[in-house]
Amino acid sequence: MSDTKNPWTTRGAKLYYDNRWIRVIEHDVLDPSGKPGIYGTVHLKNLAIGIVPIDTDGSTYLVGQFRYPFEKYSWEIPEGGGPRDVTPLDSAQRELIEETGLAAGGWAEVLRMDLSNSVSDEEAICFLAWDLTQGTARPEDTEQLQIKRVPFADALAMAWRGEITDSMSVAALLKVELMARRGELPAAVARLFVRP
Amino acid sequence: MSDTKNPWTTRGAKLYYDNRWIRVIEHDVLDPSGKPGIYGTVHLKNLAIGIVPIDTDGSTYLVGQFRYPFEKYSWEIPEGGGPRDVTPLDSAQRELIEETGLAAGGWAEVLRMDLSNSVSDEEAICFLAWDLTQGTARPEDTEQLQIKRVPFADALAMAWRGEITDSMSVAALLKVELMARRGELPAAVARLFVRP
Repeated sequence: MSDTKNPWTTRGAKLYYDNRWIRVIEHDVLDPSGKPGIYGTVHLKNLAIGIVPIDTDGSTYLVGQFRYPFEKYSWEIPEGGGPRDVTPLDSAQRELIEETGLAAGGWAEVLRMDLSNSVSDEEAICFLAWDLTQGTARPEDTEQLQIKRVPFADALAMAWRGEITDSMSVAALLKVELMARRGELPAAVARLFVRP
Repeated sequence: MSDTKNPWTTRGAKLYYDNRWIRVIEHDVLDPSGKPGIYGTVHLKNLAIGIVPIDTDGSTYLVGQFRYPFEKYSWEIPEGGGPRDVTPLDSAQRELIEETGLAAGGWAEVLRMDLSNSVSDEEAICFLAWDLTQGTARPEDTEQLQIKRVPFADALAMAWRGEITDSMSVAALLKVELMARRGELPAAVARLFVRP
């Protein structure tokens, strides 16, 4: 449809910042009304990968870490960056082991989202993981993590009350809860959810 | 708790980019393991404000626009930036009128999230709005918008199937649906939700 085409004209671009994770570019544009202006964008070099692991008793795992850009401590589902040339599932499997030591036999993608689409191209992909085996975690140097094993309902309650604020965690926990209520969980996971 | 304190040491900071909407700073840091490194952060000058308006027949309103950083067309709940020195509710009321022409008599905050907490400090605040009155929209020059009025269930289905990918829209629609199922909607909205 012609009314979904790009209404911006890009006349030039200048690189302002580049590191291992992000690239910041200012674009010289004509906005949708035709006026000259600028659009500064942040390119994310990794995909954002999140995992909701479900254990045999219906527990899930939360990861606590200090989030530098917000200067605050944050409890979240296991998450990490996945290179864009690696499949999201491969990254999810690596990230879950790195952060929690858990290997999972069952995997299902539950959610894709654009996290901050007014300024960045960061895409999030979240998975449900089950059939868990505990091994040894091996976090990166940039990560100082705490791991908490809690009933899924407790993790959902934390998101519900605003104690979990990370967007991927909030959306993935809400989606898994709604999948449970709608009877759309994989059968192997559905029987782990004891509904109150 | 001492184990939730900031494990990063910041030794310096350099400004790399600054415009009306974002500021990019590279911090010279010692990471949680004590190794020297860098952390590039993106400060958002506005809050991200989203609104799920519910009409008397249970319809909601979606806004279609081209998202420049993703180079794709995106259907979303009404959204916009709110200055940090204005209350989120005031910004939500202004943004809903600007984008859709709708004034709402009833408002309730339903969600707060940190959108992209590995690189930015962008905070989202989403509201439910009801008791709607149609006026005239007045979008900004940077916005070329389409408005679509759809049953709430259709909007939820778009998010469920991955046709809506904006994180605020996905999370807010999932949360409102779960509030309906849990009987936690404001009474004036609950009776507008005809459940299938």
